[in-house]
Amino acid sequence: MLVVGELINASRKAIGEAIRAQDAAYIQKIAIDEFEAGADYIDVNAGIFVGKEPEYLQWLVKTVQEVVNAPCCIDSPDPKAIDAALSVHKGVAMINSISLEKERYDALIPVVAGTDLKVVALCMSDEGMPETMDARLKIAEKLIEGLVKNNVPLNNIYVDPLVQPISVNNTFAVEFINSVEAIMTRFKGVHTMCGLSNVSYGLPVRKFMNQAFAIMAIGKGLDGLIINPLDKMMMASLVTAEALAGRDNYSVNYLKAYRNKKFDFLG
Amino acid sequence: MLVVGELINASRKAIGEAIRAQDAAYIQKIAIDEFEAGADYIDVNAGIFVGKEPEYLQWLVKTVQEVVNAPCCIDSPDPKAIDAALSVHKGVAMINSISLEKERYDALIPVVAGTDLKVVALCMSDEGMPETMDARLKIAEKLIEGLVKNNVPLNNIYVDPLVQPISVNNTFAVEFINSVEAIMTRFKGVHTMCGLSNVSYGLPVRKFMNQAFAIMAIGKGLDGLIINPLDKMMMASLVTAEALAGRDNYSVNYLKAYRNKKFDFLG
Repeated sequence: MLVVGELINASRKAIGEAIRAQDAAYIQKIAIDEFEAGADYIDVNAGIFVGKEPEYLQWLVKTVQEVVNAPCCIDSPDPKAIDAALSVHKGVAMINSISLEKERYDALIPVVAGTDLKVVALCMSDEGMPETMDARLKIAEKLIEGLVKNNVPLNNIYVDPLVQPISVNNTFAVEFINSVEAIMTRFKGVHTMCGLSNVSYGLPVRKFMNQAFAIMAIGKGLDGLIINPLDKMMMASLVTAEALAGRDNYSVNYLKAYRNKKFDFLG
Repeated sequence: MLVVGELINASRKAIGEAIRAQDAAYIQKIAIDEFEAGADYIDVNAGIFVGKEPEYLQWLVKTVQEVVNAPCCIDSPDPKAIDAALSVHKGVAMINSISLEKERYDALIPVVAGTDLKVVALCMSDEGMPETMDARLKIAEKLIEGLVKNNVPLNNIYVDPLVQPISVNNTFAVEFINSVEAIMTRFKGVHTMCGLSNVSYGLPVRKFMNQAFAIMAIGKGLDGLIINPLDKMMMASLVTAEALAGRDNYSVNYLKAYRNKKFDFLG
């Protein structure tokens, strides 16, 4: 299970303010917390700053990697911002994300072609957001074909089938998890990942629902998540779901989490 | 989601003692608690009392149904005990369980043939406990065929694919949930149900793991569970998982659970 820490996102008010004020210490504290909590990648997003996104994204990468020995997930659709960020990035970054929207696709293929970058492939096209498994599979297939043709190996592709709220349509979570299963089955070697929070949009007790959704999706094969790694119940759910999904030989990671008091929040 | 309350089981020390002492008030308190917490069926088990099981099982049914307007799940492989229990049972009982073990199968088919009883069909045969999805499917198919031939309609059959511990083999949970999916897909109209606790046998933090396993299995189609309905986190997980599994139009039950403070344990 690949965990991307989602907290350093300019759309969160305190983060936006810290970026504007170039408050490195604040950003670094969060990066360290995310890393120590188990994040494999630290997501960096400066999307709200029109015109300054390249500069700020580059600053975020430098600031984070000064204190944390982990790669970043460069969260932008803008090739200029991504290039600026990559120019200072140490190690192999993840790009979040390419999609099948023509403008975005054409802009990002040259950035990732022939590299060893990890690439999130978002199931979105110019026809809008897919609602069914079949619609998602069609987009995923085209994205995977295009990326592989451009020498991005299957193993570096993380398809994001695009989570949508069950408050809009009660089939949306099922269509999503079935998409995960179909993608993981048809394109052996590819990965799937997503953020969770959209699923519970408009409903109460969202954290609990998001966590249940993560467990269900892992049961269907999901192997990457963009989450808040400081959420103890979520992290405990992931290690538990992984053990149940047969991805934790002899429950080694589960038992280690137990010894390291990762379930103590249960009281 | 069909919920069977598991607490009135003689193998639990306090229950065994209450049965021996014929302490109706104690049993009735638990039955009321289970029912009010959302149990659709009240499981009754007097299996530890060799020779007295028919008498005690009958007493349990009478005792429970004196105070609770719900059917019982008659938890015994012994046709004599089941007959005794059924002779006083009001409404349509569930029988837990028939299996493909020849002696048990031959004894129970006459009990359920041509009735409107709900029947749990446990995936166990004289060859032992199935470990893979394929082995479970073979047993399930024979059980379903046999029951249908004996005029038990598909809709009254609850296949229990038999949960086994991941501490023995880390594929056991995956094989189980894949069995649920395969059974629900191949035999349209049949149900699946199970107890959970075996999955976490030998591991710490069992309640949390059992609950994650329930969520995963519901994501694969499971629609019945034998659980402790007084476990608030488990019950909240079920209503959440049902909403995510597309079985709760407009999230009506989820929102009702929220209004009825079923998530308040989260603090």
